[in-house]
Amino acid sequence: MYQEAFNRGVAKSMSILVLGTVALDSVTTPQGTRRGMLGGSAVHFSMSARLFTPVHLVAVVGRDFPGEHISFLRRKGVKLDSLCVAEGLTFAWDGKYEGDMNAAITLDTRLGVLATFSPVLAPPQKKLDCVFLANVDPDIQHALLDSLGRARLVGLDSMNYWIHSKRASLLKLLKKVTLYVANDQEARDLSGERNLIKAARALCAMGPSMVLVKKGEHGAFLLSKDFMAQVPAYPVDSVVDPTGAGDTFAGACMGYLAKAKKIDQACVKKAIAYGTVAASFNVEGFGVEKTARLCKADLDKRFVALRATVAF
Amino acid sequence: MYQEAFNRGVAKSMSILVLGTVALDSVTTPQGTRRGMLGGSAVHFSMSARLFTPVHLVAVVGRDFPGEHISFLRRKGVKLDSLCVAEGLTFAWDGKYEGDMNAAITLDTRLGVLATFSPVLAPPQKKLDCVFLANVDPDIQHALLDSLGRARLVGLDSMNYWIHSKRASLLKLLKKVTLYVANDQEARDLSGERNLIKAARALCAMGPSMVLVKKGEHGAFLLSKDFMAQVPAYPVDSVVDPTGAGDTFAGACMGYLAKAKKIDQACVKKAIAYGTVAASFNVEGFGVEKTARLCKADLDKRFVALRATVAF
Repeated sequence: MYQEAFNRGVAKSMSILVLGTVALDSVTTPQGTRRGMLGGSAVHFSMSARLFTPVHLVAVVGRDFPGEHISFLRRKGVKLDSLCVAEGLTFAWDGKYEGDMNAAITLDTRLGVLATFSPVLAPPQKKLDCVFLANVDPDIQHALLDSLGRARLVGLDSMNYWIHSKRASLLKLLKKVTLYVANDQEARDLSGERNLIKAARALCAMGPSMVLVKKGEHGAFLLSKDFMAQVPAYPVDSVVDPTGAGDTFAGACMGYLAKAKKIDQACVKKAIAYGTVAASFNVEGFGVEKTARLCKADLDKRFVALRATVAF
Repeated sequence: MYQEAFNRGVAKSMSILVLGTVALDSVTTPQGTRRGMLGGSAVHFSMSARLFTPVHLVAVVGRDFPGEHISFLRRKGVKLDSLCVAEGLTFAWDGKYEGDMNAAITLDTRLGVLATFSPVLAPPQKKLDCVFLANVDPDIQHALLDSLGRARLVGLDSMNYWIHSKRASLLKLLKKVTLYVANDQEARDLSGERNLIKAARALCAMGPSMVLVKKGEHGAFLLSKDFMAQVPAYPVDSVVDPTGAGDTFAGACMGYLAKAKKIDQACVKKAIAYGTVAASFNVEGFGVEKTARLCKADLDKRFVALRATVAF
């Protein structure tokens, strides 16, 4: 069904709208510490999605947000018409990673202007029909989706906090999305199933056309009613900072899908392969250090190398 | 180099010799309890390797070992000329799995006749040139390898106990093997590297032509000096008992390699795909319940299905 909707709309636009956070991140990993870096889900998403298709960002920052970050995003081609600058301080996250760096430990979160964020779209952007709802309050995700016309491709991310505190809202949203992306723990929490295959199947039954389960260094798999696709992670031997890897994965994946002429099994498999490859660059540097410097050819090179490791 | 040795010897024999344990296993998982089941590394290995090539088993059991298990192994085509029946009790393992069943909890181990085991090969078997040294004391693995003529394909497994207590012996052995198989934790322990790619690279530098790292439900990857191969696990939604999954993986992998005309990248990738597929059957039943009933066509069916999930 989503394929029909998609194919009907493909002539309209290939641009993608991303709703999410723009943050100032402070991160400590075994590789070092960075303070006040540009981060946030919408930023990480944009860094990989921009390599496929124009990206329009919907987010809020405070008056303290450095102008150099605005200039940087503009230079990277990210459209900022719906970036709201509000009274107050920018959302800030302070976290660290230890040992195998599989899980972030949050040291401090300052919501700032995010606490009262209500997205307002610049009128021309209401016509965009590919959208990614990165991790924010599900009520805000609903509001944005409702302000769009009929979307042909809707991606959704969430997190454990909303899974537990706004479950009903999230479940309602799931019925409207093409692709729900979750990490392994989120998939288990929302479905109540420990086995990841069962979890993904249960999530699929909740409405989305496709469910993508990200497993960090162990790759990812995608389930639809018709097929399953698996992709191992692109092998990385030096992880510097995993912050934003999931959003970077989603950015390349959605960017590829937004640009595709037809969403079929072959297309979806390529999309998640680009996702894992984009994420591999993200973890090799702090924040957007590596992804900001990427060009499509860098992705393509690892895409081909990854394919060589899995083809049999 | 191992390819040359292999190709020289391919006309000689395709049979495979496996040195390992034959055990009586008692296992409790969330799916139930079984007591005194036929188990052990050499048995699990044989159940999948036999689907590719004749298997000769080298192991010891006690006088208590049930005759029905002997008959069963014979019926499955496993050659028992070098199965020694010694005074004393058969090696027995009592363990359980909880939660996500990723790690076995040992409740009791009775070494029995394994404590004084010294493998003696039936003379015709000394000519066999494909051998898998499943997890036993590295000194015993050495002794068996020395009693063979020039082997063209040598597989080696070990475990944390030997990695720590007989490291020097194990390191010496590594220089003589074609394929070293380890799970993620063993690879980390022996190499001293936490990152699995770095760990596999370090292990490769210790001598083996190829290193296979098994990651359970997350699949496996193989590293040689020339290439890398990755395979996700065949998706299983109901794990009953993971005991022997690693040996079952190794059995199919080694069985495929023993029969191959040439060990090259394409062949190795198929071998590990068969390994993960064989392991997927193993975990779906207690002990050898499922693998004992397998035919090659069952493996082929999942092999093709797995390929469909990863090709992009």
